[in-house]
Amino acid sequence: MPIPAPNLYPPFNIIRLSHVDFGVKDLTASKSFYVDTLGLQITDEDDTTVYLRAMEERGHHCMVLHKSDTAHVKALSYKVFDEGELDKAHDWFKAKGHKVAWVERPYQGRTLATHDHLGMPMEFYFKMDRLPPIHQKYALYKGVKPLRIDHFNCFVPDVDEAVAFYNEIGFRVTEYTEDSESQRLWAAWTHRKGGVHDIAFTNGLGPRLHHTAFWVPTPLNIIDLLDLMSTTGYVANIERGPGRHGISNAFFLYILDPDGHRIEIYCSDYQTVDPDLEAIRWDLKDPQRQTLWGAAAPRSWFEHGSLFEGLEPVASTLGASPIIAP
Amino acid sequence: MPIPAPNLYPPFNIIRLSHVDFGVKDLTASKSFYVDTLGLQITDEDDTTVYLRAMEERGHHCMVLHKSDTAHVKALSYKVFDEGELDKAHDWFKAKGHKVAWVERPYQGRTLATHDHLGMPMEFYFKMDRLPPIHQKYALYKGVKPLRIDHFNCFVPDVDEAVAFYNEIGFRVTEYTEDSESQRLWAAWTHRKGGVHDIAFTNGLGPRLHHTAFWVPTPLNIIDLLDLMSTTGYVANIERGPGRHGISNAFFLYILDPDGHRIEIYCSDYQTVDPDLEAIRWDLKDPQRQTLWGAAAPRSWFEHGSLFEGLEPVASTLGASPIIAP
Amino acid sequence: MPIPAPNLYPPFNIIRLSHVDFGVKDLTASKSFYVDTLGLQITDEDDTTVYLRAMEERGHHCMVLHKSDTAHVKALSYKVFDEGELDKAHDWFKAKGHKVAWVERPYQGRTLATHDHLGMPMEFYFKMDRLPPIHQKYALYKGVKPLRIDHFNCFVPDVDEAVAFYNEIGFRVTEYTEDSESQRLWAAWTHRKGGVHDIAFTNGLGPRLHHTAFWVPTPLNIIDLLDLMSTTGYVANIERGPGRHGISNAFFLYILDPDGHRIEIYCSDYQTVDPDLEAIRWDLKDPQRQTLWGAAAPRSWFEHGSLFEGLEPVASTLGASPIIAP
Amino acid sequence: MPIPAPNLYPPFNIIRLSHVDFGVKDLTASKSFYVDTLGLQITDEDDTTVYLRAMEERGHHCMVLHKSDTAHVKALSYKVFDEGELDKAHDWFKAKGHKVAWVERPYQGRTLATHDHLGMPMEFYFKMDRLPPIHQKYALYKGVKPLRIDHFNCFVPDVDEAVAFYNEIGFRVTEYTEDSESQRLWAAWTHRKGGVHDIAFTNGLGPRLHHTAFWVPTPLNIIDLLDLMSTTGYVANIERGPGRHGISNAFFLYILDPDGHRIEIYCSDYQTVDPDLEAIRWDLKDPQRQTLWGAAAPRSWFEHGSLFEGLEPVASTLGASPIIAP
Repeated sequence: MPIPAPNLYPPFNIIRLSHVDFGVKDLTASKSFYVDTLGLQITDEDDTTVYLRAMEERGHHCMVLHKSDTAHVKALSYKVFDEGELDKAHDWFKAKGHKVAWVERPYQGRTLATHDHLGMPMEFYFKMDRLPPIHQKYALYKGVKPLRIDHFNCFVPDVDEAVAFYNEIGFRVTEYTEDSESQRLWAAWTHRKGGVHDIAFTNGLGPRLHHTAFWVPTPLNIIDLLDLMSTTGYVANIERGPGRHGISNAFFLYILDPDGHRIEIYCSDYQTVDPDLEAIRWDLKDPQRQTLWGAAAPRSWFEHGSLFEGLEPVASTLGASPIIAP
Repeated sequence: MPIPAPNLYPPFNIIRLSHVDFGVKDLTASKSFYVDTLGLQITDEDDTTVYLRAMEERGHHCMVLHKSDTAHVKALSYKVFDEGELDKAHDWFKAKGHKVAWVERPYQGRTLATHDHLGMPMEFYFKMDRLPPIHQKYALYKGVKPLRIDHFNCFVPDVDEAVAFYNEIGFRVTEYTEDSESQRLWAAWTHRKGGVHDIAFTNGLGPRLHHTAFWVPTPLNIIDLLDLMSTTGYVANIERGPGRHGISNAFFLYILDPDGHRIEIYCSDYQTVDPDLEAIRWDLKDPQRQTLWGAAAPRSWFEHGSLFEGLEPVASTLGASPIIAP
Repeated sequence: MPIPAPNLYPPFNIIRLSHVDFGVKDLTASKSFYVDTLGLQITDEDDTTVYLRAMEERGHHCMVLHKSDTAHVKALSYKVFDEGELDKAHDWFKAKGHKVAWVERPYQGRTLATHDHLGMPMEFYFKMDRLPPIHQKYALYKGVKPLRIDHFNCFVPDVDEAVAFYNEIGFRVTEYTEDSESQRLWAAWTHRKGGVHDIAFTNGLGPRLHHTAFWVPTPLNIIDLLDLMSTTGYVANIERGPGRHGISNAFFLYILDPDGHRIEIYCSDYQTVDPDLEAIRWDLKDPQRQTLWGAAAPRSWFEHGSLFEGLEPVASTLGASPIIAP
Repeated sequence: MPIPAPNLYPPFNIIRLSHVDFGVKDLTASKSFYVDTLGLQITDEDDTTVYLRAMEERGHHCMVLHKSDTAHVKALSYKVFDEGELDKAHDWFKAKGHKVAWVERPYQGRTLATHDHLGMPMEFYFKMDRLPPIHQKYALYKGVKPLRIDHFNCFVPDVDEAVAFYNEIGFRVTEYTEDSESQRLWAAWTHRKGGVHDIAFTNGLGPRLHHTAFWVPTPLNIIDLLDLMSTTGYVANIERGPGRHGISNAFFLYILDPDGHRIEIYCSDYQTVDPDLEAIRWDLKDPQRQTLWGAAAPRSWFEHGSLFEGLEPVASTLGASPIIAP
């Protein structure tokens, strides 16, 4: 029994992933990476915090960088449909026995801080300051010309369990990797907004954030970024790619920010709004699921991830980095 | 007060536009245009009908061509969330006094045939035969490599009225053109699926179908199609483009099929899933709303459209083709 | 007998076109256009003159802008193989009775100033200061990312005559437009460096410079420029394109600088190094020679050109702008 | 003293590399690879031989496949300027004591068969059947849309020696890799036609052919080929890439044909027609010379090559595959 039937009538309505908050050790270095190299736009900043958005986004921020003694992820945030849905979320998590708290977040309305089944910090809001469109201010485009934040990918010790939890709150599986022998899930991609994923899960020491992805218009933007990074001192920050994933069909590049937070830049995606969309199954034994073109990913890609603030990851129930094999 | 507030709790849940049914006079010529030149895939055919899908679609068809003595549009079809929503749609249209009928459509489940406020034929279904994915069967890609049907655009005699009707059933306005003097709408783009549009409305003699659009990954696919059409006897079928619309930011090309049905091929779109997304207003006096780069559209683009079967269009309440001016 | 056999053993060895010197009325405005919008690099400047190069060029300049009361073209310059060839050029022009003078040009070695059969100013040099490569300094790329100057295109009153002159000094015709009735040439493309053209000739009031062209890697660079110009106050400077020429197969865009000097940005070219390459003939009656995709060029494109300093153009021997027809 | 001064007045005038003749064990398999997957056009074929050209070429063939019991390279061919230059070549090789013979080659005029300083078979001709242009017959384009053959790359046991020989016959070095300690050349790129290379040399067991390269317009053509090969049974034939070489700045992909003959598909090149173009030096210790983006090449890329018919390669004078290091 690989994946559960999609829950088409979830307890509350999550619209999409919204933003990530990174603890970074050198704010200047991180800012230069995300702004000058990646091309995100600063929407606010002070000595300790920088708020960023991508070119087609109207919400105030898709990424928050805050100065910190340790590199970590503070929380993964999601936008819900309206205030009523926010209260439903609060009640649902509370009834489940998860910690819940109403927290203040700049530029956001009422915000719920809670966590998933593993304690991974999740925040929900319904309202964020809206900014004027800049997607046609072409003089502002630079770096990889990022259009929007697209998804999170997390290491979890038990993918079946993670899929069960996120499926219950309405995330629908689009593609997944299964081990035909154990019939266990090794990875899964789930969405709310109608694309391939808002959050994906990869088997491994977790919970840890594997990567945060940004969507760009064409592969040439990714090639431009590679040329720029290779000739501006960032060649060592290029980890994997360019390539095509079998799973999701994404044309991808993986890079590491100055603290080692992994960013995926990708394009190509497909529409998944049909409630009866069949998830695509990949066999663990098929190496093309990872790279359609055959090139293997570096070991670091299977092992390295970002820690969540104050959260100790636990070992996979499937052994270390099993997705490397075969 | 140009546009109404989005109706976030519509009477029934439309997922997306689904397909169009064209009456064509020469089935062989039309098939060759859509299959060999555009690159759509045949999913079924006989002497009188051809069913087509685009490369990332899993539903059986996004276009139906049926042999006919006249070139016309039989209906614009939409997919609803589930069977319950289909019944709600039936009851809502019936209560409004619109004609409603349950009709048989090959490869579809229960299908509701009705019409909008102008009599424009609309069909709704909740279930269509699903086909195996082919988006990674790259040997099948040809022509413009169409990934999916994206939207319809219709001439209507009164855009304010059309927006009011479609807004009531949940279509949200993303961008619109307004005449600052009359404060009347001259054009509007509305969506259900989270992109810029599922259906757009243009002021003019109507109702008539202005065009049906397909989404492609990059501008280079459109350039490839132009090169192909120009050297295979279709140069006269190229009507407008390539160019960038100010409205929607689409990189576009407009071509005419053998019966004069207009097809838009485009790329670049942006995500519109936020329920609080502000619609973008364009002034009628701004020529860049039509072509960001300044080139004027040919007169035919403002005047020619496809008739709906058995439906007589009426003159615009705003005068002939006002969107040409200035 | 439209075009002469190529002269494979010319009197002196021209390597390629090298640079153009424009008189501009507002140096600041022109500099901003060529540097900030087009993306050329400044190699030297003072209050009256700006020297520019493109990204893959090692020679000091491909364009010189000098402050002037009138917009004009001072000279079209060419690089010869070595100093011996420069002397041969001097002697050949002198023997032909053309004015010849040795002139001082900054950053160049010994420079010959002379003119063609129409008095069009030509300069020849064999040595120019060489600069370090910057084609892999990707942080410097901006605007349209111009890689190199590619060719000149001139209005001349008699294309047969111009081709005869330039053919004699080694320019080989790659493509040409002929009027099948009069058997007169209406346009011709000639090269030295192994591409489609170093200089082309178009029938019309001349001599005048129709345009100077820069080569870019892909059509997407041209689309980026269109987006940038349209949203930074240069929309009126976009004259024609994007499109594909039948002749030369170039994907093109024509823009006007602040003084009305026309610049073509293009990509796609083919190799013409074979001495036995057959020139491609186009019939004046074939509209696809101009735009493969069928769109007509604006009237200004056929009529507007830049004057050479102190040179009065004369009317075409074929009537006004005949290349418009049909 | 790493590289010799370019010989600007060579003993005879080679225009460009022209074609390669491969011995292949399964003609049907090779034909399907080069025609259906790569997209070369068949210009003639019988049971034992297939002649191919790329899309912008007018000469009859750029590749000959002949059925053979062993996979091998029969000869590397070059086009000379005219018949006089062909005789000069004959006399020069003869005077040097190289074997020379006039041989019959279908579709070619008088052809000289000889060899370089290592015995590597070279053939020279001045005339080949010319075919009508097909570069604008866009319906014929498929696979990677190859525009022209671009260069050869050979393993040689002594790169200094190879450069000295080819430099003497007019090949100019554009870029090279040097070991700062030994001051020996480890690789060099040399050209005749005005691009980065017609033939390049790589240190290793040789002479062997490392690869034959084809030029394509954009990186997207290479991505299309990767998608096609990965989903049509050729994933194991993808050896290296896509990536950007530091040397030459080429965006590259290396694939292996059914006999293991290596083909490079690449785009981006720069003009090298200036006789005073300075060669670019790369240090052996700089890994970005191989891949600007940092990814290492697979071991096979440094070790595998095609044998020349009846020619026994000898070990490098610099040790095995030193270019892997550091």
